[in-house]
Amino acid sequence: MRLWHNPASPFVRKVRILLRETNLASRVEEINTPVSPVNPHAELAAKNPLVKTPALETDDSRVLYDSSVICDYLDTLHSGAKLIPGGAARWDALRLESLCDGILDAAVLCRYETAVRPEALRWNDWVNGQLTKIRNGLDALANEAPTWGNTFGIGQIGAACVCGYLDFRFADENWRSRAALAAWYESVKQRASVAATVPA
Amino acid sequence: MRLWHNPASPFVRKVRILLRETNLASRVEEINTPVSPVNPHAELAAKNPLVKTPALETDDSRVLYDSSVICDYLDTLHSGAKLIPGGAARWDALRLESLCDGILDAAVLCRYETAVRPEALRWNDWVNGQLTKIRNGLDALANEAPTWGNTFGIGQIGAACVCGYLDFRFADENWRSRAALAAWYESVKQRASVAATVPA
Repeated sequence: MRLWHNPASPFVRKVRILLRETNLASRVEEINTPVSPVNPHAELAAKNPLVKTPALETDDSRVLYDSSVICDYLDTLHSGAKLIPGGAARWDALRLESLCDGILDAAVLCRYETAVRPEALRWNDWVNGQLTKIRNGLDALANEAPTWGNTFGIGQIGAACVCGYLDFRFADENWRSRAALAAWYESVKQRASVAATVPA
Repeated sequence: MRLWHNPASPFVRKVRILLRETNLASRVEEINTPVSPVNPHAELAAKNPLVKTPALETDDSRVLYDSSVICDYLDTLHSGAKLIPGGAARWDALRLESLCDGILDAAVLCRYETAVRPEALRWNDWVNGQLTKIRNGLDALANEAPTWGNTFGIGQIGAACVCGYLDFRFADENWRSRAALAAWYESVKQRASVAATVPA
């Protein structure tokens, strides 16, 4: 399999953590693919018309995206404990994954606004609206983190990517003021899958 | 169940079409929820920290989001033909849903840029980057539409929402220059589920 990836992308990181948690990493060739909405990439565009990473080419030549579909697919390829559970737990896991994806969407939009868009064209109300989503989302993560115990499924993978992305791009945000979330992240950031995929 | 919805949202429309295709609509109370990144909504924020529609409160008091998770959940509640198939067809369906979601994400970002953001702060490169994603995505839909036959699953629901949203917000875009996609949409827009959910 081939993964079009970008080491700065928190959505790519979800996939890379899952690959390592499930011992599938050796089956995937990772192709470094720098890309942004104003900086397209012809090879990736031929595989994914949305020109976004992550995109995964499977052994039977399907190209899958986005990160949640790729993770869902990869979780079927191994015989270990599933990172996306069945039964009622499935909905809690997918809802948590969506919460984390939404925080990351808002964070990436903030990043485009404050680091990519020409300074004269930036809009404070937009940044503040996205920051409100990020902060409300972090409050929600902090509220539920104490219930996670030792579970490290798709939702917790998302949460680790949120914490890591904030450290990477929002160093001034002080998200660790939420003690329960900060304590949880300390407990998972030494996992091999998380340590091996720190954004750079 | 309760659905926080906004009749202008193409992501909400995916859920509303699925509810009608599966005869579940009578089990869901729809709560009209106008919202945007710069116009939050307190009641919705208490249910979904991302303050986005659609959000679904289930009969066992879970709140689910985003649209793909809600559709996945609802598809388990009926005994008819599944809109998200199993086996290898699952990945084709979810990839197509993601393609449509990505086109819609780009279209909604364009819409925020050209209709919500103050005119002096608009950035042409951003709009053009998103329009490129939309147009490449439409080309991809037009390429594969002839293979869909009479299938109307989660991917085709997404495609109907793409076509409808472009008619609604991008009347000048002439997406119907892609004859195969235009012919397909003509064949599905009279379906009761599609006709009942035209954005307004």
